Amino acid sequence: MAEKPEKRKNLSTEPYKGVRDFYPADMAIQKYIFDVWKKTAESFGYEEYGASVLEPADMYKAKSGDEIVNEQTYTFIDRGEREVTLRPEMTPTLARMVAAKKRELVFPLRWYSIPNLFRYEQPQRGRVREHWQLNVDLFGVDDIEADSEVISLAYKVMKNFGAKDGDFEIRINDSSILVEILSEKLGKGKEETRNILKIIDKKKNKIPADEFKKLMIEKYGKEVFEKLDFYFNDQKAIDEFISDKRFEKLKAIKASLVELAKDTKNTIPIKLYPYLTRGFDYYTGLVFEIYDTNPENRRALFGGGRYDDLCSLFGGDKIPAVGFGMGDVTIRDWLETRGLLPKTKAPADYYICVMSEGEAAFAEKTAENLRAKGSRVAIDFTYKKIGDQIKSADKRGIPNVIVIGPEEAKSGKLKVKNLTSGEEKEL
Amino acid sequence: MAEKPEKRKNLSTEPYKGVRDFYPADMAIQKYIFDVWKKTAESFGYEEYGASVLEPADMYKAKSGDEIVNEQTYTFIDRGEREVTLRPEMTPTLARMVAAKKRELVFPLRWYSIPNLFRYEQPQRGRVREHWQLNVDLFGVDDIEADSEVISLAYKVMKNFGAKDGDFEIRINDSSILVEILSEKLGKGKEETRNILKIIDKKKNKIPADEFKKLMIEKYGKEVFEKLDFYFNDQKAIDEFISDKRFEKLKAIKASLVELAKDTKNTIPIKLYPYLTRGFDYYTGLVFEIYDTNPENRRALFGGGRYDDLCSLFGGDKIPAVGFGMGDVTIRDWLETRGLLPKTKAPADYYICVMSEGEAAFAEKTAENLRAKGSRVAIDFTYKKIGDQIKSADKRGIPNVIVIGPEEAKSGKLKVKNLTSGEEKEL
Repeated sequence: MAEKPEKRKNLSTEPYKGVRDFYPADMAIQKYIFDVWKKTAESFGYEEYGASVLEPADMYKAKSGDEIVNEQTYTFIDRGEREVTLRPEMTPTLARMVAAKKRELVFPLRWYSIPNLFRYEQPQRGRVREHWQLNVDLFGVDDIEADSEVISLAYKVMKNFGAKDGDFEIRINDSSILVEILSEKLGKGKEETRNILKIIDKKKNKIPADEFKKLMIEKYGKEVFEKLDFYFNDQKAIDEFISDKRFEKLKAIKASLVELAKDTKNTIPIKLYPYLTRGFDYYTGLVFEIYDTNPENRRALFGGGRYDDLCSLFGGDKIPAVGFGMGDVTIRDWLETRGLLPKTKAPADYYICVMSEGEAAFAEKTAENLRAKGSRVAIDFTYKKIGDQIKSADKRGIPNVIVIGPEEAKSGKLKVKNLTSGEEKEL
Repeated sequence: MAEKPEKRKNLSTEPYKGVRDFYPADMAIQKYIFDVWKKTAESFGYEEYGASVLEPADMYKAKSGDEIVNEQTYTFIDRGEREVTLRPEMTPTLARMVAAKKRELVFPLRWYSIPNLFRYEQPQRGRVREHWQLNVDLFGVDDIEADSEVISLAYKVMKNFGAKDGDFEIRINDSSILVEILSEKLGKGKEETRNILKIIDKKKNKIPADEFKKLMIEKYGKEVFEKLDFYFNDQKAIDEFISDKRFEKLKAIKASLVELAKDTKNTIPIKLYPYLTRGFDYYTGLVFEIYDTNPENRRALFGGGRYDDLCSLFGGDKIPAVGFGMGDVTIRDWLETRGLLPKTKAPADYYICVMSEGEAAFAEKTAENLRAKGSRVAIDFTYKKIGDQIKSADKRGIPNVIVIGPEEAKSGKLKVKNLTSGEEKEL
């Protein structure tokens, strides 16, 4: 058979695997989420900063969890032989920027950002390769006031999304306590300690208690499980343990938030949770999580903590720092599940339907006049039947329609029809 | 000599080469630029969309200029053996998205986006490896009304930045005319035509006329230069040439914009410019540029055009499309040069100075009450001398200061001091 001439294959309309296209309806939701984030952070006096997604790969080799650097980053060599990474998290970038100008910056620093972050993962529900994340951080304050502020800002974000106090709880812990039990009381080395923490972080809340027990005993032996379990489930041990000064500090943080909430007539849902640990190595004290109380979705929605050492990786002194990150995918899912997403705004206030080309210039002028008064105005230039043009406005959810034909163009007298009420008014 | 133990080297605080860190002061300018872009696009009824910076590399091999794909993209192989590119421009992504849902979307589509784009270039003033770009596009209208609308939106952006009509001019052309002269009248092949267009695009306005002449003659011979020169500099030839129906259309576009501007009391600075071509192959008709009239900076600030064929690369019919892109680096430079950047907003409305830890809880409550009324409030938790705390507010440009000591915490009576006027008021 004669070969057919090669035909140009059409390009695929699919996005790259694991990332999202944001059509206007999705973008509007994204914008709503970002707006709540921005408004809340700014109400606490936080300033927005930003940076490129590209960072020197070295930065992530220093202090992230191993798994992230070795298996989950997008790292490549550029045309100038530099090893470059698409940032998997914002905190190292932030620490770099603060360290770079620490002599010029006025502390305390309150900064926020909404970066996109990349992880090479197998895409599945709630896991994508690129997501956006609110990052809120306070630098230069060592005291519990900073810890309380950051947690109360996180709480405020939830409230500003319309969450009720019963919908979630805030869990706090000191990340150094678990490390101490494992290393000092159980004599585990650094590597094993890290692995045990990872298992606790990933599994403790996700699987039933007996499965977790089985897993821990299989992997690390009976002693480890029982010691941890004793510390966290035996009330006497807890009482003894929480006389530790770090728990005193946590209790003070909790008290300060409860006190603050009392005044605003909310009951802040906050509790000490000794099993709480987070996936990153850089936390040095407080860790906290906003935890979904829905029995069908027991999981952390987001979290953060204190990381006083991170800036010193870039040379110079430590700078006390506390902050959190909150992802767009998780919160969007949560808002959808709870029915908390608001209706999105129409793309324009007025839609001008034009009968024929002869009226185009008049339609443009009419639009310009309305825009000058602050309205958003779109013109339909298809010259289809007016009924079809009005349908087109309706499909877009645009509330007001103006029809322009030869008569209107001549007289200049225009009527505005509201598509919801059916009412007509002179413009 | 004994080897010294290896010391951990500090990480560099430099960002990746050729990209920018946005500290809050820079981010505020960026935000101002984005806000003007968004407001203007939305006033014409454009809806925001977005997509990932990651795209399948195939997309750019299809229709961009060669140089971009071969030498200037960030392209790499991911862990799943996919060839992936950091988008160098948004239009192919947009065409992909529109093509993917063309049956569901309601045309005409008015869409805008502010993506970041990547080019591997040698960094220099005005050239960075990552920049942001407003993209405005109108799909589904074949007529000059769409061309006029997009140009008048571009014009409006400039006006909303505070530009005066004398500061810039709008140059329009039909991109197919130059192609026709080169291929039909001069018999040049596709490749050479493309190269000549590139030289015209890059050099015509940047170097003196005699240098340009020398360059053209050296590279492509006397005939090419003289034919082009004849068409564009001999008034009789121009008159003859612009009887072409495409020029008729351009004249109509121009007339419609001039007419529109008359009504808004502006003199729209628009002219036909036959030498105008743009760096991309995909333009099929109208091309336009906003050109800086400053004699020391003769260059295009931004531009766009009509690209009716691009969507069909993804299969199916052509979809008429016209749009433009406007970069943040160029416009920021321009705004700075012209003194048009506004003062940026302070990070908070109130700064609360706290004498000692004992008043921290009261300070937090005061802040919460002010936030509940819509104010942005930051607290200084350093417990430094009050004078130093006030200086810190002043450095940040925060206008109002509240000092809280034991007396204020007890009485609940607070005074607000305005740092600009020196005035004090009860809260």
